Amino acid sequence: VTAAAASARATVTLLTDFSTPDGYAGEIKGAILTGAPAAQIIDISHDMPPHDVDLARLTLARYWRRFPPGTVHLAVVDPGVGSARLALAVESDGRFLVGPDNGVLSPALLVPGAVAVTLPVPPHAAPTFHGRDVFAPAAAALASGASLESLGEPAPEPVIRRTPEPRRLESGALEGEVIAVDRFGNAVTNLMTAHGGSVLVEGWTLPVLVTYSDRAPGEPLALVGSSGLIEIAVSEGDAARRLGLQRGSRVVLEPA
Amino acid sequence: VTAAAASARATVTLLTDFSTPDGYAGEIKGAILTGAPAAQIIDISHDMPPHDVDLARLTLARYWRRFPPGTVHLAVVDPGVGSARLALAVESDGRFLVGPDNGVLSPALLVPGAVAVTLPVPPHAAPTFHGRDVFAPAAAALASGASLESLGEPAPEPVIRRTPEPRRLESGALEGEVIAVDRFGNAVTNLMTAHGGSVLVEGWTLPVLVTYSDRAPGEPLALVGSSGLIEIAVSEGDAARRLGLQRGSRVVLEPA
Amino acid sequence: VTAAAASARATVTLLTDFSTPDGYAGEIKGAILTGAPAAQIIDISHDMPPHDVDLARLTLARYWRRFPPGTVHLAVVDPGVGSARLALAVESDGRFLVGPDNGVLSPALLVPGAVAVTLPVPPHAAPTFHGRDVFAPAAAALASGASLESLGEPAPEPVIRRTPEPRRLESGALEGEVIAVDRFGNAVTNLMTAHGGSVLVEGWTLPVLVTYSDRAPGEPLALVGSSGLIEIAVSEGDAARRLGLQRGSRVVLEPA
Repeated sequence: VTAAAASARATVTLLTDFSTPDGYAGEIKGAILTGAPAAQIIDISHDMPPHDVDLARLTLARYWRRFPPGTVHLAVVDPGVGSARLALAVESDGRFLVGPDNGVLSPALLVPGAVAVTLPVPPHAAPTFHGRDVFAPAAAALASGASLESLGEPAPEPVIRRTPEPRRLESGALEGEVIAVDRFGNAVTNLMTAHGGSVLVEGWTLPVLVTYSDRAPGEPLALVGSSGLIEIAVSEGDAARRLGLQRGSRVVLEPA
Repeated sequence: VTAAAASARATVTLLTDFSTPDGYAGEIKGAILTGAPAAQIIDISHDMPPHDVDLARLTLARYWRRFPPGTVHLAVVDPGVGSARLALAVESDGRFLVGPDNGVLSPALLVPGAVAVTLPVPPHAAPTFHGRDVFAPAAAALASGASLESLGEPAPEPVIRRTPEPRRLESGALEGEVIAVDRFGNAVTNLMTAHGGSVLVEGWTLPVLVTYSDRAPGEPLALVGSSGLIEIAVSEGDAARRLGLQRGSRVVLEPA
Repeated sequence: VTAAAASARATVTLLTDFSTPDGYAGEIKGAILTGAPAAQIIDISHDMPPHDVDLARLTLARYWRRFPPGTVHLAVVDPGVGSARLALAVESDGRFLVGPDNGVLSPALLVPGAVAVTLPVPPHAAPTFHGRDVFAPAAAALASGASLESLGEPAPEPVIRRTPEPRRLESGALEGEVIAVDRFGNAVTNLMTAHGGSVLVEGWTLPVLVTYSDRAPGEPLALVGSSGLIEIAVSEGDAARRLGLQRGSRVVLEPA
């Protein structure tokens, strides 16, 4: 891996579960700008559900490659802060990522050619706030043009967390599940299709259509969402509430 | 209309109802910076009530002309995504605006000299996420100096949504309504006054004063708010809760 | 005090209790960029509890010195807007701060060498929105290189609000209190220790440990938090809920 060229004005994105009123996210931003005064800081979210590493991983998967090469993505959803879990910096597909070694960075680690290093924890670091004292300085260094290799030793075996794989049933159908519910009540599954078909969920059989308005208002449908995964939706409505869906709800895809 | 000069470092603002944890707003930001690496992205809000086009329109009215000429405002509150509704880019009073053709951009469209074009939807665009695949690239192009005319064909008749007009009563008083309730519980009406008077609402008769502290703590009052409209407030309190006000509540202005 | 050198691209941070959907924070951002087009705007929070000056003060204390010298911090939690309270700009330890004279800026005012001036309120300023019409223009002027002294007359006696001091008991122990509860349920106190000891709170006796994972999941502990103050926490849990803690809860530190 060659170090990506330092951009003149690097972008650093932030994903945390800190919310904003306590000022922790503000402290991280100050630490980034102290180390990289020319960086542009972009908020992804500070309102992730507390300690929900899997949802943060799915959210990160959505956005990290939408940013230009050279972008530094900081993701701090870190229930194990202060424990023996390692701290990571990753270079993958031309982007950099920094965060705890708890699986939140898996989407980037799983890309062929990804390289990870372990960040040392300086003695002055607050044991409960690596976001400010370990991750932010590393992100600032990367945003200032430091190479990944200069930040630490190779990380031999970073923690990987994966979205569960669908299971092939004897009937030929695929059994999957709801992996996330968005703020509109759309239920994202781990199922994909290129050929339509229909979806069985909570006693409903739903056609795989193209968009919400292919169905009358209030009626449920399935569609291929903007990340390529099948979603359960209700036209102008809330599918999770209407159909009683939550993370883990069973969903079956019947081929067309 | 002459194309506004491209600023060296354009600002792109974002107003959505996506909230942040799902990562949709993050994807839009990545798409903007991919197309306009030097842009500064400014969050207005991602916490608009879902699908509430009218409230988004009122919020946009507050801020769009407070930004310098050349600013690009992206507003994605888009219940009709994927339907036949058009996609718009607008140039008005030196600013640019991008969003769905559902009335959310009305405050800019109603300014004399405003010009609107229809954005083509590229074949690869996700039918459920024009924010990322249609609006963000158009905003990035404008932020990079593209002219409005280069983005699409003139839009013959953009959708306009208007704040309801007050009605003149036989008594000479003006009958209006609450159009928004802010987070402090202040109820903004569609009424204006340059000469004081008093306001009748939910059985109360309130003087039109200058500021909250013109009334004792806990007491209701009316005042001319920071956007020039009459508001119902409670000094150090929540007027909507205290007086039982909501959008649509009837309010009458008696002349002084 | 010498005026800090104007940075080529100043940072302006924002702390408010406006939330974002109403557009007030957006208006402030527009006013800042109108006056200082090259500034980078950084959101600290817009979700402060309404009118909670003391919590805003504690949050400001966390982040204001984490940013590089030359940064301008705008803090608008302003229950007295429109009353006779003064408007302030402050220079302290190389940073600038702007906000109402209600104690929210105390962390910077208490630093030796701090200088404060009173901002004039222009006649066109909306009486209910000094954030937009008084504070934002002052922040923009400072971000553009104006000296503090050019903005107004010296402020003779700015309002100071202080975190309550712990009280020494006859036993030699220190009696303090919970001053904030963060979003994870950690209860921050006004107590400090360099030598361990134990904490008595709501009938529990808790050792002062180093980090959450020094205790089994679900078990309460005390630790020195990232701002140097003792916090009550529950490993992988919510201490405020588990122990029934809130602001003002009594906490006693027994020496080691």
